[in-house]
Amino acid sequence: MSKVRVGIIGAGRIGKIHADNLLRMAEAQIVAVSDLYANEELTSWANARGIGLVTTDSSEIIGHPDIDAVFICSSTDTHVPLIIQAAEAGKHIFCEKPVSMDVNRTKEALEAVNKAGVKLQIGFNRRFDHNFKRLREVVEEGRVGDPHLVKITSRDPNPPSPEYIKVSGGIFMDMAIHDFDMARFVSGSEVDTVFAQGAVLIDPVFGELDDYDTAVTTLTFTNGALAVIDNSRRAAYGYDQRVEVFGSLGTVAAENDYPNTVTVSDGTGVVRDKPLHFFLERYNEAYIEETKMFVDSVLYNRPLPVEGFDGLQAELIARAAKQSAKLSRPVKLNELA
Amino acid sequence: MSKVRVGIIGAGRIGKIHADNLLRMAEAQIVAVSDLYANEELTSWANARGIGLVTTDSSEIIGHPDIDAVFICSSTDTHVPLIIQAAEAGKHIFCEKPVSMDVNRTKEALEAVNKAGVKLQIGFNRRFDHNFKRLREVVEEGRVGDPHLVKITSRDPNPPSPEYIKVSGGIFMDMAIHDFDMARFVSGSEVDTVFAQGAVLIDPVFGELDDYDTAVTTLTFTNGALAVIDNSRRAAYGYDQRVEVFGSLGTVAAENDYPNTVTVSDGTGVVRDKPLHFFLERYNEAYIEETKMFVDSVLYNRPLPVEGFDGLQAELIARAAKQSAKLSRPVKLNELA
Amino acid sequence: MSKVRVGIIGAGRIGKIHADNLLRMAEAQIVAVSDLYANEELTSWANARGIGLVTTDSSEIIGHPDIDAVFICSSTDTHVPLIIQAAEAGKHIFCEKPVSMDVNRTKEALEAVNKAGVKLQIGFNRRFDHNFKRLREVVEEGRVGDPHLVKITSRDPNPPSPEYIKVSGGIFMDMAIHDFDMARFVSGSEVDTVFAQGAVLIDPVFGELDDYDTAVTTLTFTNGALAVIDNSRRAAYGYDQRVEVFGSLGTVAAENDYPNTVTVSDGTGVVRDKPLHFFLERYNEAYIEETKMFVDSVLYNRPLPVEGFDGLQAELIARAAKQSAKLSRPVKLNELA
Amino acid sequence: MSKVRVGIIGAGRIGKIHADNLLRMAEAQIVAVSDLYANEELTSWANARGIGLVTTDSSEIIGHPDIDAVFICSSTDTHVPLIIQAAEAGKHIFCEKPVSMDVNRTKEALEAVNKAGVKLQIGFNRRFDHNFKRLREVVEEGRVGDPHLVKITSRDPNPPSPEYIKVSGGIFMDMAIHDFDMARFVSGSEVDTVFAQGAVLIDPVFGELDDYDTAVTTLTFTNGALAVIDNSRRAAYGYDQRVEVFGSLGTVAAENDYPNTVTVSDGTGVVRDKPLHFFLERYNEAYIEETKMFVDSVLYNRPLPVEGFDGLQAELIARAAKQSAKLSRPVKLNELA
Repeated sequence: MSKVRVGIIGAGRIGKIHADNLLRMAEAQIVAVSDLYANEELTSWANARGIGLVTTDSSEIIGHPDIDAVFICSSTDTHVPLIIQAAEAGKHIFCEKPVSMDVNRTKEALEAVNKAGVKLQIGFNRRFDHNFKRLREVVEEGRVGDPHLVKITSRDPNPPSPEYIKVSGGIFMDMAIHDFDMARFVSGSEVDTVFAQGAVLIDPVFGELDDYDTAVTTLTFTNGALAVIDNSRRAAYGYDQRVEVFGSLGTVAAENDYPNTVTVSDGTGVVRDKPLHFFLERYNEAYIEETKMFVDSVLYNRPLPVEGFDGLQAELIARAAKQSAKLSRPVKLNELA
Repeated sequence: MSKVRVGIIGAGRIGKIHADNLLRMAEAQIVAVSDLYANEELTSWANARGIGLVTTDSSEIIGHPDIDAVFICSSTDTHVPLIIQAAEAGKHIFCEKPVSMDVNRTKEALEAVNKAGVKLQIGFNRRFDHNFKRLREVVEEGRVGDPHLVKITSRDPNPPSPEYIKVSGGIFMDMAIHDFDMARFVSGSEVDTVFAQGAVLIDPVFGELDDYDTAVTTLTFTNGALAVIDNSRRAAYGYDQRVEVFGSLGTVAAENDYPNTVTVSDGTGVVRDKPLHFFLERYNEAYIEETKMFVDSVLYNRPLPVEGFDGLQAELIARAAKQSAKLSRPVKLNELA
Repeated sequence: MSKVRVGIIGAGRIGKIHADNLLRMAEAQIVAVSDLYANEELTSWANARGIGLVTTDSSEIIGHPDIDAVFICSSTDTHVPLIIQAAEAGKHIFCEKPVSMDVNRTKEALEAVNKAGVKLQIGFNRRFDHNFKRLREVVEEGRVGDPHLVKITSRDPNPPSPEYIKVSGGIFMDMAIHDFDMARFVSGSEVDTVFAQGAVLIDPVFGELDDYDTAVTTLTFTNGALAVIDNSRRAAYGYDQRVEVFGSLGTVAAENDYPNTVTVSDGTGVVRDKPLHFFLERYNEAYIEETKMFVDSVLYNRPLPVEGFDGLQAELIARAAKQSAKLSRPVKLNELA
Repeated sequence: MSKVRVGIIGAGRIGKIHADNLLRMAEAQIVAVSDLYANEELTSWANARGIGLVTTDSSEIIGHPDIDAVFICSSTDTHVPLIIQAAEAGKHIFCEKPVSMDVNRTKEALEAVNKAGVKLQIGFNRRFDHNFKRLREVVEEGRVGDPHLVKITSRDPNPPSPEYIKVSGGIFMDMAIHDFDMARFVSGSEVDTVFAQGAVLIDPVFGELDDYDTAVTTLTFTNGALAVIDNSRRAAYGYDQRVEVFGSLGTVAAENDYPNTVTVSDGTGVVRDKPLHFFLERYNEAYIEETKMFVDSVLYNRPLPVEGFDGLQAELIARAAKQSAKLSRPVKLNELA
């Protein structure tokens, strides 16, 4: 194999981002794209990029003999059946998070992948961020010793629409799931127990939809270490994405990224611009990197940087968090089995 | 009254700090000092400062006709009886935290103070820190809107001795109690529920003494906002004291203080010195300020900056935290009534 | 014109960077590339990018009927004749800095450009850096008032080879010329007088070649404001590129860029990684932006962001600086006329 | 000698600062204070501090048998005669900068001191600042290698009154003299040549009084290294005091001090408070430290941290700078001999 031939399933915002990143790689070629709502606009988008086949039918992609790998970027409810079909067709799979909202369904998908011996990478793009990747390296090098405490701040600039909230799976499954993966990633540890507190402080619509807009989740790892994650659906100053790992020998912290380093000092104080606005700006390079590593993994049969198991664990933690917030008590992951 | 005439009860490290700070104020005069273990060294220390009376008997201080106010800096178990005696003797009182380890005893002390109409300030020195004071101002000015989340990091450079741990009341009553007060101070809100997790990650001796060396506590305020506090008994890089208040309009954060602003850039990276080592360095000015405000409050009959009620609330939260960590469930403050 | 059809003259490192950036733009197409030393490697490089024509003869490019604009990336001594030829052939021109080492020759080139009515952009890429662009905006908005003082720090991580030094034109013409342009750019002012001091502190080879490795240049603007620039050929910690404009209402400063925001705090201090290593890392986006603005200027007939006049001024200042350092006295630009 | 018995000559702002700092030291005692304009207010100020003698006649201080050392804080024109008298009377001397505006007069004073074998410390308080002291340590430890370039920014928040400007000796002798000393202090090198540029950009009154309000001075050290200093009489954001030493192995930089570490992030950006306002706030601890080191030097016969020679060198540089700015050419220190 000299190039990975890719089919994109789901051509929304994130599908198009992956497509554009793949197009910049000599090691990849996009053969086809499918979308339930494929129209002339999508066709002209595909043409401009030299993508020959546009279809509304994902099975055309999965059944395509000249496709080695699929990117599943369609809505969450379609992930499991698509993974199973793709695995059975012997395709390697990149799937956006979460695999599903139902842990048992996710397990089914993972089994199919396992049985077929194909690769499945989950879209936890933040692992590829220049800051968090460096932070993980520092932890791995042992420079902060044994991790005692992971602290994650993860806040969005603006809440999604009520329509999106309804189908999102809630703040833990939709938003905090990235942070649950981050906690495992930077600490290299597995979670035992989850305690989550949710609040509705930004917009009552979250409460009406049985969701929260603000949350604090604490995790206990199996080795006794702790993690604490705070989430908000609206930070007035933009996207806030910070991680700290405190350990026996010190602490390592990644601060936000800013659009520039300029400060203005005048009679009122010292001012700098707000952090990079949202995930497209902040994680632009991370999206490129995760795609590149998937392609390399397929092409050179290298280990995946994020596997199906990682997707499953994050979902388990999210489910436990949701339950914990509801029941007002800590929930152990093995209660969910 | 042109000067507040003070008696110091308990001449350990903190008693001596208060004494030296009082000596620098034109508005205060130290008349006497008592300590159970008063010896020649203390006498010569007192002489060098022009303090006429040194005694082992605190009642000599409390009964002294030329003393207006007492500083209670003796061991925690003596606080309640001394407060009651001093209040009954009509003396104004500055008392180190915590008032007691037993919330009911603390209430008794507060009642005595109330009945006598004297002033009682609790030694929550961190409220007077230049950073946290400024942060509180910013919150009060409404610049971050309604507080949604308070985040406090509070880590010591080194664990205390096993002897101290034994009588300390545990990490929540001895260490986190400052942070519980800080959470109330910066948010201007009262706590409803506490969930605390403790871990023994630094030294097994903490576990042997039925205590923790690492803890994460989440608080729910009565207005629905949340707070999260992380504590460690040993931060390899020194004293770590940071506070953030995230609200509907933005966030305000106070970082650590450093001994200097010098950075060295060389082939290995960019380095600066560690934060100020411990509370004596970090809160030096805060101790001066709290003493000054107590003296001013007595002299000019101004409102106290920290009252007995604040001491009681912090103790209630600490007690709830201890119970929560033990029971692995959230504990409501009103369960403790 | 729907696309700008480009010919690249000189396929060294910088020529290839421009080529790759042009290839990413839908508005540009590379028709041909020339290099005195064109070989099979270059041909295969060109083929992989769909560039049809590879030649050793730059006149094939300049005479090519399907080329609208040329990028002159060959050695400095070829710039003037190539500009004149290209202008006479009616091609728009992007030329690397400096236009020449001889101010009179540069003027000839500018006259040819002027006469032909083509566009000439000079490769002062740093004007397009996210930090300096933002700094310039702040100055233009009047937020720091009238500029009183411009401060520029510009240090390379490593000295060039003796071979390069020999033909470089010296530290002022080769290195500081960027900073002379920056001083004009951020202040919006013209230079009247130059005083430069050079020193040989890094490697005696600089002295042997009648050059300096360290320099401080002060500029007096025609409006009386001042600028000061420090240059070094070797900063052990990497590339150091900082600019400050101090004015009547405040100061605006752009700090270095770093590969990440991670800090590690341990028993020895607080450490972060070194700044981005060199110009390829630091000015990657700036190179893209300058190319894009040139293409847009040609395509939509917009004003150029850097013109021939800017190249001439920077060269005049560099020449004055060289003379000043030699003569140990301030040199006025109009002495050079 | 168990205490240094001090007489203060000149009880203006700086004289009172020194007095208050001395009063806090067990090793010093203030016996008398003189001021040409001594009045009841001064007497009551002195009484409140237990200073027995208040006089308008400085010779009462210098001739006093119970005085070991004098602090000369009177106007600059009185420094030389007072130093000579005090030296002849065998008193140790702390003298504010500059010793005089006339280098020959300063030399006379130094000779008298030398002949009498008394100690003379010059009031270059900034050497004792926590940041610059640390920076000097880093340089001395060799962590940045051989210094190549010293950069000093030194800006005041507000210009002095025209009355003060008239007698100040000008921006170089009055303001930059501190920075000239700093350049020698942090580099450990001596100055060979000075080139200074002055401008009137803030207030025409400076020009009318034959002075400047803005200046850039470059120094060449005898070892070939360079220094550059920028001064402004008005920085809208307050007191700006930064120093950097760039050397063969790296760079060390001291940033400004701020009143707190609080940042506010909101929809408009990230803001922090301005730096500490002026020298009283910024150099408070430095004043204490310089006084303490003088007292210790007298008491324990330790080497002085700043000597008469340092005062002389700074004055020579200031004089050369003034001449250079006037003549628009570099001036060598040995031209002034």
